[in-house]
Amino acid sequence: MTYEQIRYEVSDHIATLTLHRPDKLNAYTVRMMEEMIDAFDRADADDDVGAIIVTGDGRAFCAGADLEMGAKAFDAAGQPGSPIAADGTIDYSADSARDYGGRLTLRIFESLKPVIGAINGPAIGIGVTMLLPMDIRVASENAKFGFAFARRGIVPEGASMWFLPRIVGISQALDWCMSGRTFGAAEAHGGGLVCDVTAPGDLIATARAIAASYAESSAPVSVALTRQMLWRGLGMAHPMEAHRIDSRGVLARGHSADAMEGVTAFLEKREANFPDRVSIDMPDYFPWWDEPEYR
Amino acid sequence: MTYEQIRYEVSDHIATLTLHRPDKLNAYTVRMMEEMIDAFDRADADDDVGAIIVTGDGRAFCAGADLEMGAKAFDAAGQPGSPIAADGTIDYSADSARDYGGRLTLRIFESLKPVIGAINGPAIGIGVTMLLPMDIRVASENAKFGFAFARRGIVPEGASMWFLPRIVGISQALDWCMSGRTFGAAEAHGGGLVCDVTAPGDLIATARAIAASYAESSAPVSVALTRQMLWRGLGMAHPMEAHRIDSRGVLARGHSADAMEGVTAFLEKREANFPDRVSIDMPDYFPWWDEPEYR
Amino acid sequence: MTYEQIRYEVSDHIATLTLHRPDKLNAYTVRMMEEMIDAFDRADADDDVGAIIVTGDGRAFCAGADLEMGAKAFDAAGQPGSPIAADGTIDYSADSARDYGGRLTLRIFESLKPVIGAINGPAIGIGVTMLLPMDIRVASENAKFGFAFARRGIVPEGASMWFLPRIVGISQALDWCMSGRTFGAAEAHGGGLVCDVTAPGDLIATARAIAASYAESSAPVSVALTRQMLWRGLGMAHPMEAHRIDSRGVLARGHSADAMEGVTAFLEKREANFPDRVSIDMPDYFPWWDEPEYR
Repeated sequence: MTYEQIRYEVSDHIATLTLHRPDKLNAYTVRMMEEMIDAFDRADADDDVGAIIVTGDGRAFCAGADLEMGAKAFDAAGQPGSPIAADGTIDYSADSARDYGGRLTLRIFESLKPVIGAINGPAIGIGVTMLLPMDIRVASENAKFGFAFARRGIVPEGASMWFLPRIVGISQALDWCMSGRTFGAAEAHGGGLVCDVTAPGDLIATARAIAASYAESSAPVSVALTRQMLWRGLGMAHPMEAHRIDSRGVLARGHSADAMEGVTAFLEKREANFPDRVSIDMPDYFPWWDEPEYR
Repeated sequence: MTYEQIRYEVSDHIATLTLHRPDKLNAYTVRMMEEMIDAFDRADADDDVGAIIVTGDGRAFCAGADLEMGAKAFDAAGQPGSPIAADGTIDYSADSARDYGGRLTLRIFESLKPVIGAINGPAIGIGVTMLLPMDIRVASENAKFGFAFARRGIVPEGASMWFLPRIVGISQALDWCMSGRTFGAAEAHGGGLVCDVTAPGDLIATARAIAASYAESSAPVSVALTRQMLWRGLGMAHPMEAHRIDSRGVLARGHSADAMEGVTAFLEKREANFPDRVSIDMPDYFPWWDEPEYR
Repeated sequence: MTYEQIRYEVSDHIATLTLHRPDKLNAYTVRMMEEMIDAFDRADADDDVGAIIVTGDGRAFCAGADLEMGAKAFDAAGQPGSPIAADGTIDYSADSARDYGGRLTLRIFESLKPVIGAINGPAIGIGVTMLLPMDIRVASENAKFGFAFARRGIVPEGASMWFLPRIVGISQALDWCMSGRTFGAAEAHGGGLVCDVTAPGDLIATARAIAASYAESSAPVSVALTRQMLWRGLGMAHPMEAHRIDSRGVLARGHSADAMEGVTAFLEKREANFPDRVSIDMPDYFPWWDEPEYR
């Protein structure tokens, strides 16, 4: 796939995905969604990529859905293959009914590589909800955030009703989403949405340092498993469900070449050189879940 | 229903529910529960109400269950229709077995309007657990809080075992409930129970400003949906469950008159004037859940 | 059971469990696990114990799994009764497949008495994951923490994928576990892992004061119920599930001798002297759950 609305670069084992419609404040389109999903597939398949940074080109991170259709911007009626019939009835369970924000956030949720959001400017609507399945977020002082959905007459999307209250707490989530107001980087930091606020010129260096902390000293297969374990642990009702999964992990990984190297390197007080690769060495019990379908 | 133990007032699209037994420190009774539930029904049915404030009259918010029965205050045995038989056996699944605190907190959980707690003084026992299903809480410097249940020989009620660890974290929740100690507004703020602490004279103005931020610029139907989405998102095991619901929301609401107005007003840089009403314009997929029954 | 690798002491209604292999930095062994599980059983059965403190002897809390086997430290292959067959296939559902960290953390999760972690020095690997099912943690300035699993080529264990994101949030949990880095007491405090940081000489006194706040003024049966209610409330999908349980609690405990004494003492403005005992007076609906099995 050739990218038109994003850029994809890899250096020092870090893939950087840059939203790239700067003249449109990186407004979100179906094309941009398709390119981003493809880019996450590419990064997962590339053993040279140990972590992923997502940022925006120009003065915005992402100003939200492209509103060039005007008042009909959020209205699927009349579009080719629309789940809204001529009489206004809606086929909610059709695959075409799926929100374009959620298709991307669910893909990010599945990522085998750590994902760092580097928010360089305004992140509104899908611009902020796409950040939620990322593992950690750092903001420039120029960043602004807005869960503006209720002010446009629609609702929070991108599965943010699952992600947001788990990240910032239910009360903060409700406050931001029911008011729909725009807020700055300091409030985002205080509320737990971002872990750090930097000068604009330090944003990418800060994000790269975080990415390196995951990509340099940890075993890539262990990182991929850990990422999925912690996110999916959030949805488990009882710690016994976790015990079943991490027992499998300790057994399979304890028997791996990576563990032999990891313990040996530790005892020899040197950096480890892990041999296992995410593309071919994920343990046989992975994935341990059946991914639910849209319906 | 005529209210004897609360007051109900609406102004500027904000309903204020005031616990009103000031000579009893607004101690909770079955009558007060019935009036509060009725008041939430009334506010939900009134399209002129965009948000709800709950506060207390006099020097307390609510000192807890009325203890005028003395040592038997929490003992249902011997009361008319009691689930406790003469031989002491308990019919736990009877409707009469339902905790009076939980009947109110589950009703608040169902609210279609944002709910702001304005805690003017001591909030003890049910006085504090009734605050938990509210969306946001602001406290006067005079406020005090106490999950005193273990000090009275009973247990936390009002479904607080679900709400409290989600709002303040499991460790803080355990500390407050296992010690049963009373703590002030500053500790409540530090622990995440309240979002702000004000001088006593500024409490209601602060609460009204928060209420207005939800009632003034957001579409009421979007706010009602958003409130239920975020609270119910907390109980979902996987973000796909959220994707199913918000895809329905984006489709139905994107096709609504509110969305047309919301986008148009945004592009015209003016305040939106949303036509849809909560009483008649909730989308056809709402509610998307079957409410569980007591048993 | 005679303890060789821990010490067990009771004074002033507080049991102190001390990891006691100081020359090995209290490194974790199968024997230590068995002794700790036995000690939790003992404390639960002893009505003289109102709270439990867990700490370490010497300069470490627990440096992690004992690595004296070297490169094979985490490899179960070839051990007696191993779930790893000679051809490398793994019987993941065998009881022998169960992680030794999770066996302990699930036992702590079940505790009927409050558990306070007093972290005197380095807590690495199982040394930190064993802290997560404790109710509250206080650290000496000398404490250090490390979820080092990914740096050894394995994965987070001890059911930490369930506990950790609920205690410190998903983003902080991912950051610590994917980097595997070591961090100090101040960062642990800022991240919500510990509630307080003390001078080394004040650690035990601080932990004992917390323990006393649970053991002195609250009814022991109420504390045991409250502990299980809040932890298990975390896994419930809907507050109605909580309403079913706390309604039972209010009914059974409201009818108890403890509640009579608790209300009477409150009205007489004196300390209560609760008669009910955890060993014999837990209500008939307890436990209200079926504990899931490993498989």
